[in-house]
Amino acid sequence: MPSLPPVRLAMVGGGAGAFIGPVHRMAAELDRQILLVAGAFSRDATKSREAGVAWGVAPERCHSDYRALIADEAARTDGAQLIAVVTPNATHFPVAKAALEAGLHVMSDKPATATLAEALALRTVVAEAQGLYGLTFTYTGYPLIREARAMIARGEIGAVRKVVVEYSQGWLWSAIEREDGQQQAGWRTDPAQSGHGGCIGDIGVHAFNLAEFVSGVPVKSLCADLSRVVPGRKLDDDCNVLLRLANGAPGVLHASQVASGDRNGLILRIWGETGGIEWRHEANEQLVLNRPGVPTQVMHAGEGYAGIAAPRLPAGHPQGFIEAFANIYRDMANAIRSGHPATIVPGIAEGVRSMAFVDAAIASSQARSWVDLTELVA
Amino acid sequence: MPSLPPVRLAMVGGGAGAFIGPVHRMAAELDRQILLVAGAFSRDATKSREAGVAWGVAPERCHSDYRALIADEAARTDGAQLIAVVTPNATHFPVAKAALEAGLHVMSDKPATATLAEALALRTVVAEAQGLYGLTFTYTGYPLIREARAMIARGEIGAVRKVVVEYSQGWLWSAIEREDGQQQAGWRTDPAQSGHGGCIGDIGVHAFNLAEFVSGVPVKSLCADLSRVVPGRKLDDDCNVLLRLANGAPGVLHASQVASGDRNGLILRIWGETGGIEWRHEANEQLVLNRPGVPTQVMHAGEGYAGIAAPRLPAGHPQGFIEAFANIYRDMANAIRSGHPATIVPGIAEGVRSMAFVDAAIASSQARSWVDLTELVA
Amino acid sequence: MPSLPPVRLAMVGGGAGAFIGPVHRMAAELDRQILLVAGAFSRDATKSREAGVAWGVAPERCHSDYRALIADEAARTDGAQLIAVVTPNATHFPVAKAALEAGLHVMSDKPATATLAEALALRTVVAEAQGLYGLTFTYTGYPLIREARAMIARGEIGAVRKVVVEYSQGWLWSAIEREDGQQQAGWRTDPAQSGHGGCIGDIGVHAFNLAEFVSGVPVKSLCADLSRVVPGRKLDDDCNVLLRLANGAPGVLHASQVASGDRNGLILRIWGETGGIEWRHEANEQLVLNRPGVPTQVMHAGEGYAGIAAPRLPAGHPQGFIEAFANIYRDMANAIRSGHPATIVPGIAEGVRSMAFVDAAIASSQARSWVDLTELVA
Amino acid sequence: MPSLPPVRLAMVGGGAGAFIGPVHRMAAELDRQILLVAGAFSRDATKSREAGVAWGVAPERCHSDYRALIADEAARTDGAQLIAVVTPNATHFPVAKAALEAGLHVMSDKPATATLAEALALRTVVAEAQGLYGLTFTYTGYPLIREARAMIARGEIGAVRKVVVEYSQGWLWSAIEREDGQQQAGWRTDPAQSGHGGCIGDIGVHAFNLAEFVSGVPVKSLCADLSRVVPGRKLDDDCNVLLRLANGAPGVLHASQVASGDRNGLILRIWGETGGIEWRHEANEQLVLNRPGVPTQVMHAGEGYAGIAAPRLPAGHPQGFIEAFANIYRDMANAIRSGHPATIVPGIAEGVRSMAFVDAAIASSQARSWVDLTELVA
Repeated sequence: MPSLPPVRLAMVGGGAGAFIGPVHRMAAELDRQILLVAGAFSRDATKSREAGVAWGVAPERCHSDYRALIADEAARTDGAQLIAVVTPNATHFPVAKAALEAGLHVMSDKPATATLAEALALRTVVAEAQGLYGLTFTYTGYPLIREARAMIARGEIGAVRKVVVEYSQGWLWSAIEREDGQQQAGWRTDPAQSGHGGCIGDIGVHAFNLAEFVSGVPVKSLCADLSRVVPGRKLDDDCNVLLRLANGAPGVLHASQVASGDRNGLILRIWGETGGIEWRHEANEQLVLNRPGVPTQVMHAGEGYAGIAAPRLPAGHPQGFIEAFANIYRDMANAIRSGHPATIVPGIAEGVRSMAFVDAAIASSQARSWVDLTELVA
Repeated sequence: MPSLPPVRLAMVGGGAGAFIGPVHRMAAELDRQILLVAGAFSRDATKSREAGVAWGVAPERCHSDYRALIADEAARTDGAQLIAVVTPNATHFPVAKAALEAGLHVMSDKPATATLAEALALRTVVAEAQGLYGLTFTYTGYPLIREARAMIARGEIGAVRKVVVEYSQGWLWSAIEREDGQQQAGWRTDPAQSGHGGCIGDIGVHAFNLAEFVSGVPVKSLCADLSRVVPGRKLDDDCNVLLRLANGAPGVLHASQVASGDRNGLILRIWGETGGIEWRHEANEQLVLNRPGVPTQVMHAGEGYAGIAAPRLPAGHPQGFIEAFANIYRDMANAIRSGHPATIVPGIAEGVRSMAFVDAAIASSQARSWVDLTELVA
Repeated sequence: MPSLPPVRLAMVGGGAGAFIGPVHRMAAELDRQILLVAGAFSRDATKSREAGVAWGVAPERCHSDYRALIADEAARTDGAQLIAVVTPNATHFPVAKAALEAGLHVMSDKPATATLAEALALRTVVAEAQGLYGLTFTYTGYPLIREARAMIARGEIGAVRKVVVEYSQGWLWSAIEREDGQQQAGWRTDPAQSGHGGCIGDIGVHAFNLAEFVSGVPVKSLCADLSRVVPGRKLDDDCNVLLRLANGAPGVLHASQVASGDRNGLILRIWGETGGIEWRHEANEQLVLNRPGVPTQVMHAGEGYAGIAAPRLPAGHPQGFIEAFANIYRDMANAIRSGHPATIVPGIAEGVRSMAFVDAAIASSQARSWVDLTELVA
Repeated sequence: MPSLPPVRLAMVGGGAGAFIGPVHRMAAELDRQILLVAGAFSRDATKSREAGVAWGVAPERCHSDYRALIADEAARTDGAQLIAVVTPNATHFPVAKAALEAGLHVMSDKPATATLAEALALRTVVAEAQGLYGLTFTYTGYPLIREARAMIARGEIGAVRKVVVEYSQGWLWSAIEREDGQQQAGWRTDPAQSGHGGCIGDIGVHAFNLAEFVSGVPVKSLCADLSRVVPGRKLDDDCNVLLRLANGAPGVLHASQVASGDRNGLILRIWGETGGIEWRHEANEQLVLNRPGVPTQVMHAGEGYAGIAAPRLPAGHPQGFIEAFANIYRDMANAIRSGHPATIVPGIAEGVRSMAFVDAAIASSQARSWVDLTELVA
């Protein structure tokens, strides 16, 4: 295998206090197939430069405005090829749009946009762009999530009969956005920065995306019940949703950010005619397969049978969130080099569906009735 | 403590091929505070006698008709004091009614009756009866379920914020009631023997009861989606329900009998303002308590802090289903001897609520809308 | 199947404050194939009668001396057929001997005797007796322990390569026998009542027996390190032992009663040429089978593939310690009725080997060297 | 915090087919505090250059001889400051020695050297060197291992009473070094490349180091039983060891590479007077603390109470092997920049002790007797 130079990356967002920006940086560079070379890490020029230099970026390639960054990098012969969008949700759309229109590739943190209308608009931009567009629905990068998807696609549990997906966090159990001024809590509970979905938009969409990604069956309709559990919240902090899939199978999705004491409990279960799979984020390197009348099977990441692209480490050497993220970036790097989109990497179609899911859930909860998702994404 | 003679028990149902009858017998006698002395184990006189003798019951006290049994035992000076009702659902009501009207105590397997109307009628019978009426919602007998209930009642997690309860079985994954002639599957999928609820009535009610038993907060309204997943079924075999509790807290209940490969996955989670508890049937001797910012606590059955009536065994010596069942019978025996009802033992109020739950869920699923439970139990 | 009358049982020991006596009673009667009819529950006549009556035994069949009990019962036409020996270790030998010499069957709690010499003497008594002799090495009654034994006997993991067995308790973590006057701790730490082995004799022998029972390969030699961790103890409260099996395979056995905070952590692992099994007492209804390159398999008690005699409950309905004990009693009842010894029930051979293990471990620890076990049991 | 330029790293070893070299690279660079700038990745010049370029190293800084690398880098003003030694065991000593003597810092993969004599010699070199010397006993980098060490040092479980540490792998279950020509298996089972310890030297030392690292109590003496389970092996592939610590506490260490079906099962348990801790590599983000009479506590990585240096991710976002490794490199980078050795990073003292452990274990196993470790490290 001949050595290829790394793909050059610029980041928008990710400065001091950010959570997901540093994750993108570590993930992108983990396999050294991507190298961070520039960024607009903060709207404050000093903070942007400090963040960049701490990561080894040349000071002159640290900007305070993403438009300047894009213009500058697009003009360099050694300019960034890929833009990572890690700002708060409200600016995902304009940044991604600008980068794509400048001919660059984009890797956006989720959600794709702040509204469904923006997502539909971005779909048009992506369709016309030369660059690729990827969306880091992180959990799709876990090896055994990919294995589960492949198993179901191969028919190993027969037709899908039921999906239960849940995502339970407790970190917003009290009003820390007001009481502690916590930055992460602040923008996520603020409609101006996060759009009209709270918990449903922040983590409900992860659950939704994961259910569709693994089952291979789209959600057709839903009946949602969103709550603002902590007094004074403007956005939902708990959401419970009944689902019906396109093949008629029932489902349940529930998510919470006020599940006091929980950390990050994402759990996916899918049952088919002849068996069911279970995956838990807190034990991400195991995939459980139950079938009637035979022993439960537990698959382990890194074993040959879990046939995912070259594992970094032998089985039994735990990998996790950063590595899952890095799998998505590795696929994107390969796609950029080869010129062929990576179908395993979520893109604008998933972005549109997830925004439609948020809108449908909010509408359903307000109307206290079932809502069809299909027309929203047409 | 002076030695008391055992409470004398007669059983209706429980003959060859039965599942729950033998469990009642083992549970009732486990602590030797109750002794089986008579029964109508089968409608076939020979089968009833064979079943009785195998359990040490005198042949002359084995009947083929529950009315004869009740008349006979009520007339004896050493006659049965307590009647265990373990027939298929359709006859729970007439047997319990007859026993109560004969002045006997009743321990009925769930559901209390086949319909809500019967349950409301039985409520009147119980109110006027001298005997006590208990309902074996088995899971209420597990020590750590009782501990969880006590903890929440003491306010250890603050006001209840969310309930998620699930009950996942896979044994009806294929049409075994037709293909194999399996007896248990046969009556449970037959509306004539089971009433109008399938999965919702068989195991959904266990989940419903457990949620109310532990949280201490009644369900106020629900939105259900029931399915007949296996083609040809006349009753639902999968049910998913959104809940709202009387205090406004949201909840989710989902149950299935077609979750291929699952065994008996009952899981209860309740979150309050300052923490959440989790209990899993398959690890019934652990109760998990999560609180923000401090280590997870795991309580173990049999330890002093899990302050449930005298444990049979030291911690670390696993107990399970039979012992949970036996705890309910032990409480009933104590209540009979003392003349004071055991408030921990579910009774007709829980029976009425569970039947109302079934009716409400079916109505909601048909109407595709939310239904209020409160008026149904008035 | 024609109904057979129950086997009649008398108990020696088991009065107020006892731990294991009540377990024998519940286990023996669980399936109603055995019925307690008499006993010498205490050396104090009043206490013995009170204990018996509380369990439904006729007062005139409650004795204060085991010799009187045996004489009395042996003379009755409806006398006990089976004697359960549940006294402290020091009297296991004389009681079992007397019962066997009176032509009765014996089910003895472990250890068989207080010394190896007694065990060898009892071996001769058993060989000449008409009655059967069983030894309740409880853990051999767990369904998945029996399944593991059968799997290894069938060659499913190839020749045994390594055994690791451990038994970790913490209840003697402080000197409760002196400070609290705790009865169970008292006799177990007293050489006069327990013989010369402390932890090694109380729980080490369980681990030893289980390793041999499941692996099917006897221990040939060992190197032990016994400790008295809590100051002032006269007997070991912690023991660690290297093993070599008869086929040359290495092994490790470690047990402790001062593992502060532990409950009852018995864990068995056996590896063979092509796979390894793991069983944990605290998750006794699962048996884990690992093989190179394929998914881990987890077997569940009650499933058809775990081909153990008729399960009491469907899979997913937890059973535990009492039920494991009851399996041994059920096998004994069947053996008594059929006249054919139950090879699955541990007997005097296992009793002799376990006493030899204790002697060898103590000798090895004192000599700081390896000791051969083979000659001790010749 | 002012931005500091990264520490410059060169690597010896790590070319195509290597396992641990890429792990060092990912770990060193994860936090962007260290940057790979040069290397002697292979003794074959072409292979070395290909490996380097794939990682973004300039071709002219890729060497085929570590002496040339060290000379070259030591002469540059922007030369490497830190040398990572990731060759097979036999050359750890000469490479580390050369680097230290050239004034560079060293991070060596374990074991420190191939023999105890070399380790003692290296101790002298380190003592006289200007550079720092670190040894990647990887498992010391796990946050909850460090938390456990800190807890025990603070006295939270009282004086250490017992240690049980085990490391169970199955990948050498058959003779893959002969049959498959597997590279990793080849050098690890070859005395010429691995020294005289097989399993004991490859993974037994990890277990040994971890026990001492966390307990804070050195091992004083041991009695070992090493085996060559797979026919034809020249080095042990299974080892079982009784331990006595300096404070008199007993212990057990067992490790295997022929535990068929196991992956990488490192488990550490330490009990003290008032509680015990348990850590399992396969669930590395949990630390279990048991205490008598109170609920089990489970600590989670990333929570504030697990007071380890700034976590990369919030609790509930799994981290693993690479991140543990990266923690060690981060500490080394901080030490290099500050000029103060990082006491948390294992060094030559741990290297000497681990080599002494191997020698003592081999000697003990051959002599079938206890051996004192103390004099070997004097």
